[in-house]
Amino acid sequence: MAVLASEAAPVLVSADQWRAMAQAGERYPMFAAERERVERELRAAMAAGIKVPQPRDLGGGLTHEQHKANYKAIAGAGALYRLTGDRAYADFARDLLLEYARLYPTLSNHPAGKSSVKGRLFWQALNDSVWLVYSAQGYDAIRDTLTADQRRRIDDDVFRRMARFLSEENAGYFDRIHNHATWATAGVGMTGYVLRDRTLVERALNGTARDGKAGFLRQVDELFSPDGYYAEGPYYQRYALAPFIIFARAIQQNEPARGIFKRRDGVLLKAVDAVIQSSYGGKLFPINDAMPDKGLDTEEIVTGVAIAYAQTRDAGLLSIAGQQGRTILSPDGLAVARGVAEGMAKPFDFRSMELRDGPNGDLGDLVFLRRGGADGQALVMKNTQQGQGHGHFDRLNWLFYDDGHAVVRDYGAARFLNVEAKGGGGYLDENDSWAMQTVAHNTLVVGEKSQFGADWRVGEAHPTKPLFFKAGKGLQIASARMDKAYEGVVLTRTLAMVEHPDLAYPVVVDLFRADARSPTTYDLPLHFNGHIITVFDAEHSVRERPVLGKDSGYQHLWVDAVAAPSSQSRGLTWLLGKRFYTYRFAASAPTSALLVESGANDPKFNLRREPALIQRMQGQAGASFFSVLEPHGAYDPTAETVSGATSQIRDIARARGEGAEVIVLTLASGKRLALGVADVASKTAAHAVRIDGQVYEWTGPYARFDH
Amino acid sequence: MAVLASEAAPVLVSADQWRAMAQAGERYPMFAAERERVERELRAAMAAGIKVPQPRDLGGGLTHEQHKANYKAIAGAGALYRLTGDRAYADFARDLLLEYARLYPTLSNHPAGKSSVKGRLFWQALNDSVWLVYSAQGYDAIRDTLTADQRRRIDDDVFRRMARFLSEENAGYFDRIHNHATWATAGVGMTGYVLRDRTLVERALNGTARDGKAGFLRQVDELFSPDGYYAEGPYYQRYALAPFIIFARAIQQNEPARGIFKRRDGVLLKAVDAVIQSSYGGKLFPINDAMPDKGLDTEEIVTGVAIAYAQTRDAGLLSIAGQQGRTILSPDGLAVARGVAEGMAKPFDFRSMELRDGPNGDLGDLVFLRRGGADGQALVMKNTQQGQGHGHFDRLNWLFYDDGHAVVRDYGAARFLNVEAKGGGGYLDENDSWAMQTVAHNTLVVGEKSQFGADWRVGEAHPTKPLFFKAGKGLQIASARMDKAYEGVVLTRTLAMVEHPDLAYPVVVDLFRADARSPTTYDLPLHFNGHIITVFDAEHSVRERPVLGKDSGYQHLWVDAVAAPSSQSRGLTWLLGKRFYTYRFAASAPTSALLVESGANDPKFNLRREPALIQRMQGQAGASFFSVLEPHGAYDPTAETVSGATSQIRDIARARGEGAEVIVLTLASGKRLALGVADVASKTAAHAVRIDGQVYEWTGPYARFDH
Repeated sequence: MAVLASEAAPVLVSADQWRAMAQAGERYPMFAAERERVERELRAAMAAGIKVPQPRDLGGGLTHEQHKANYKAIAGAGALYRLTGDRAYADFARDLLLEYARLYPTLSNHPAGKSSVKGRLFWQALNDSVWLVYSAQGYDAIRDTLTADQRRRIDDDVFRRMARFLSEENAGYFDRIHNHATWATAGVGMTGYVLRDRTLVERALNGTARDGKAGFLRQVDELFSPDGYYAEGPYYQRYALAPFIIFARAIQQNEPARGIFKRRDGVLLKAVDAVIQSSYGGKLFPINDAMPDKGLDTEEIVTGVAIAYAQTRDAGLLSIAGQQGRTILSPDGLAVARGVAEGMAKPFDFRSMELRDGPNGDLGDLVFLRRGGADGQALVMKNTQQGQGHGHFDRLNWLFYDDGHAVVRDYGAARFLNVEAKGGGGYLDENDSWAMQTVAHNTLVVGEKSQFGADWRVGEAHPTKPLFFKAGKGLQIASARMDKAYEGVVLTRTLAMVEHPDLAYPVVVDLFRADARSPTTYDLPLHFNGHIITVFDAEHSVRERPVLGKDSGYQHLWVDAVAAPSSQSRGLTWLLGKRFYTYRFAASAPTSALLVESGANDPKFNLRREPALIQRMQGQAGASFFSVLEPHGAYDPTAETVSGATSQIRDIARARGEGAEVIVLTLASGKRLALGVADVASKTAAHAVRIDGQVYEWTGPYARFDH
Repeated sequence: MAVLASEAAPVLVSADQWRAMAQAGERYPMFAAERERVERELRAAMAAGIKVPQPRDLGGGLTHEQHKANYKAIAGAGALYRLTGDRAYADFARDLLLEYARLYPTLSNHPAGKSSVKGRLFWQALNDSVWLVYSAQGYDAIRDTLTADQRRRIDDDVFRRMARFLSEENAGYFDRIHNHATWATAGVGMTGYVLRDRTLVERALNGTARDGKAGFLRQVDELFSPDGYYAEGPYYQRYALAPFIIFARAIQQNEPARGIFKRRDGVLLKAVDAVIQSSYGGKLFPINDAMPDKGLDTEEIVTGVAIAYAQTRDAGLLSIAGQQGRTILSPDGLAVARGVAEGMAKPFDFRSMELRDGPNGDLGDLVFLRRGGADGQALVMKNTQQGQGHGHFDRLNWLFYDDGHAVVRDYGAARFLNVEAKGGGGYLDENDSWAMQTVAHNTLVVGEKSQFGADWRVGEAHPTKPLFFKAGKGLQIASARMDKAYEGVVLTRTLAMVEHPDLAYPVVVDLFRADARSPTTYDLPLHFNGHIITVFDAEHSVRERPVLGKDSGYQHLWVDAVAAPSSQSRGLTWLLGKRFYTYRFAASAPTSALLVESGANDPKFNLRREPALIQRMQGQAGASFFSVLEPHGAYDPTAETVSGATSQIRDIARARGEGAEVIVLTLASGKRLALGVADVASKTAAHAVRIDGQVYEWTGPYARFDH
């Protein structure tokens, strides 16, 4: 650790860096505003005085919240001392830490600890780790203001003890390859840098045995896919990201030779990019257990953007920072604030991409097809692995966004985060009974049961198999297969975003093929968002709404209307925001069409009430569902004008040939647009499908035809 | 008309004024942007060429839309010619008008005219009038570029003929005291100024008989209340406003001595203020037949703000213009753009007020109680007259807004404006069967029937009687009585917005008293907006939802839950945006409580599905319903924190004494807050009411007690 100037000088952010921030900060409004915000919070904390209570409460309780407030105060006070030179801040952090030095050695396991790994300050060790990550930063900033005795007491009785508790004394926990353990490795490692304790650093990086089989580096290697995707999905990726990038930054500062941000082809920076890519309109795609209102403006992503910008100088990140409206008090935050103030921001490059899942990238993928930038079209196709216990039973699910809105949506988690009256603020029973179930998603339900028998551990053993992905000009397409979700059933879905001069916006073409060993019931839900404008002929349950089923999520669906089985294509048009959306759909055998709404069997009003269309085919073993979703027209409530309210797609048809299918869209103009999809994704196989006297011939997994 | 420089110089906006705009416009972004917008539209129209088709279609049809586009093009071309000096614009307007000079004399009544007053260019004379108002402005701007012959042809064969058609030839229409006729008087009057035709001006101002019994001035005197309220409500006020202010501006320019903007104590400027006051979050309060997405950014209000600002220089109007994001190409628009550019805008003064209804202000009132500015609390109480055919049966209705959201809301109109597939874009059947009915509002339903037997003509004969209104510090209160909505039933409601140091925000206290001759059924709906967090004990219809009734709107309500009759107070808490709302309610006799949702008997999915609470009391003649609505707490999905999720009001109680009632709120702190309300609004009457051993004594219509 050659960079150290003295045994007490700051190491996580150097004294020179702090000075640069102190001098330049006022010039950049975003940095100055954050400094003011922290100053305001800290002044309030200082006015309230030193409070380091005996640990007692669960999460949300008084002692829990006080210890949480304290680590923020220690970190904030450290930063403000460096930025202002005002010793009052340093003294406040010192006094807090001296109180901890008095309290901490007296503690054993937290009295309310229910977690398998109890903390000492908090009910779970996770929170103790977070305390350490933030307090270490604050302590680093003020450590050279202390007397040798004060320093020794805080070093030994707070940081060294806590680091020992979180590593050696809980080695099983510390050595896990899991994002909770990353907070522990980060806390221990940063403590190691601050205390100049090489052993702690080594333990953090390579595990308690220091052999590299555990520890932070192994976590970096295994917890993200090569594309930076995190197995549980964007909502948890946001959360998991924080300790990775915070500790990585500390490593970069102290041991740049490790090239931590270059590790695995820059996987940590890819992870920051991936989480931003996994958003629309500032909100993260709510796949798996996710709160749909969680967005890019969270603390974790603010931190991620700053640290990534400092490494990459990607001007697109500045526009994200601009939307976030804040940054952090660090050299990286200063760089962001300066970039924004100097007008360097460029639109973030939201682009089509395939995020491979799994440490080696061979456990499926999450696909984004995009067009038209941040407010344009975005299609998400979920071909991932299960996503552990927070994963939903929704392989081959898709979402669609347009013009700022979720048009085809995902319920996310059934939860009111931290709202005590709603199941204590945790996951509600309806998260299991509805939100996780297959029917709550836009993917095929076989036999009215959820995928993998609704057992996530079974799902975890079976990744989805991507067949192809291509983001071409005018045609973007992705396809994947799942053959283990249901015993003896092969599910293959191909989704394409197609452009055509006669169509105002790209349309989505969907071909969902199922092959079972014996006849069964197939249900294909579409959770659309908007007010129905025109609907296919159906029997309407206008005076009594039956419930659709008894379990697997069906018990939560009211039936509004049922259209009897038919082979004809049907259309459903809805209005959302300022656009119309027409979904035209049909299948290879007669299907009925049900309009349903969530909210049945919900005496506590835990569910949102949202509509869905379900296509139901019964008594078939093999089935193809094919459809097109078309955004069209403009509804302007201010000018009171409406245009393009009628779909420009007249019909949809489909034919099956030897090992391939073709879907044909007939446009209002009379032009035709066809998409051929082969069963097997071979680049060299030739296919020919005849439909209405026309023969479509191509070589390869898919082809587009215009005539 | 002394101001005229020549027989052809512009008179609606003078040549000097145009020059000032041409010179200064570029400096003010809002003005420059509007000029660019108009230029863009006009360039497209010019590229498409002169199209003046034989009238044929109904509203929305091709010829209708073309003639509509043409009057915009004529007005825009006139303005751009003056602003740029480019003769191409003047020539385009000229060529369009010469085509009209060729066509118009050949026309008789519109072939598709179904309206009682058919137009010639359009299917109804209303549209012809609007054509005249806009085209006269464009013609005025280019008239001095024409040859004498061209001028004569356009003067005589377009404007004079059209003015004659809309006045002498349709005198019955022209002389109505109705806002449609205001477009006719405005068109004819502005034509009069442009053609220097004093007779036309006189006819416009004083009616075809020129005796003042009809015409614009009479319209100004009778169509607004002294406070500037327009009988049909804010949505139609916005629409009605345009011809008034546009023509008034022309009068002010040509005959300033008339002091048109000072007429009736400045009623036209009050009307502009009133319509802005009738909004929250940029959207108009959706009372009566209103589209809830209609806001302050409409063309009419943009025009109104500009004209009013030029008269008043009220800096609050500039902040409204800033939100609108645009202004108009006129001297007034220039003043607005300049004010905005120079940072003169101040927050608009949204304030508590009573808008009296009726030409003499004695036909009821619309009350706004506000606190905390634009995003704070706003309570609307509807004590107006019926509001003609677009009025709803909702006397004593209330709405409540907080933190940017409608918390207690009104359905507005059941209509998808101009969406052909939804009943041709007009009012849907459900507007009658649901939206207008009493149960669709937040006011008492007697005997499960709507007010006035759902006959608006009956309602029109019976104004609501305001009892008192006071916007005091910490207590704002309004009360009104209606005794003709139901035969033999006197309805009295008092609504108060009350502040208390123990409560984070003002709370709403509601006392609704009904006195009938014989026992009946009372239903008091509350159309709340948000997701239910906690609900009172009830039987839930989890597997089958019955429909509440057969008619009067009840046929559209699904029943979600029913709580048996009880005398205890009940509570309902919901979450909306970032705040919780708790409604605590009880009544003078046992009431049941129903949770319902709109959407039953709606096979075309014409209705939005929105929840409501209904308190039901049966078998009583006299009844008091009393309640409190409390905004509380904070839900932050970004920081994942929740605070104040529990109501700070422990209980609500009420007692009746001689000619008065008292409502007592018991706060969580143990403090009590009471409101006494007298039956008769006398300033000198003394009252005493005993409740739980405590005697409340006061003199006057109401009193507040703290202890």
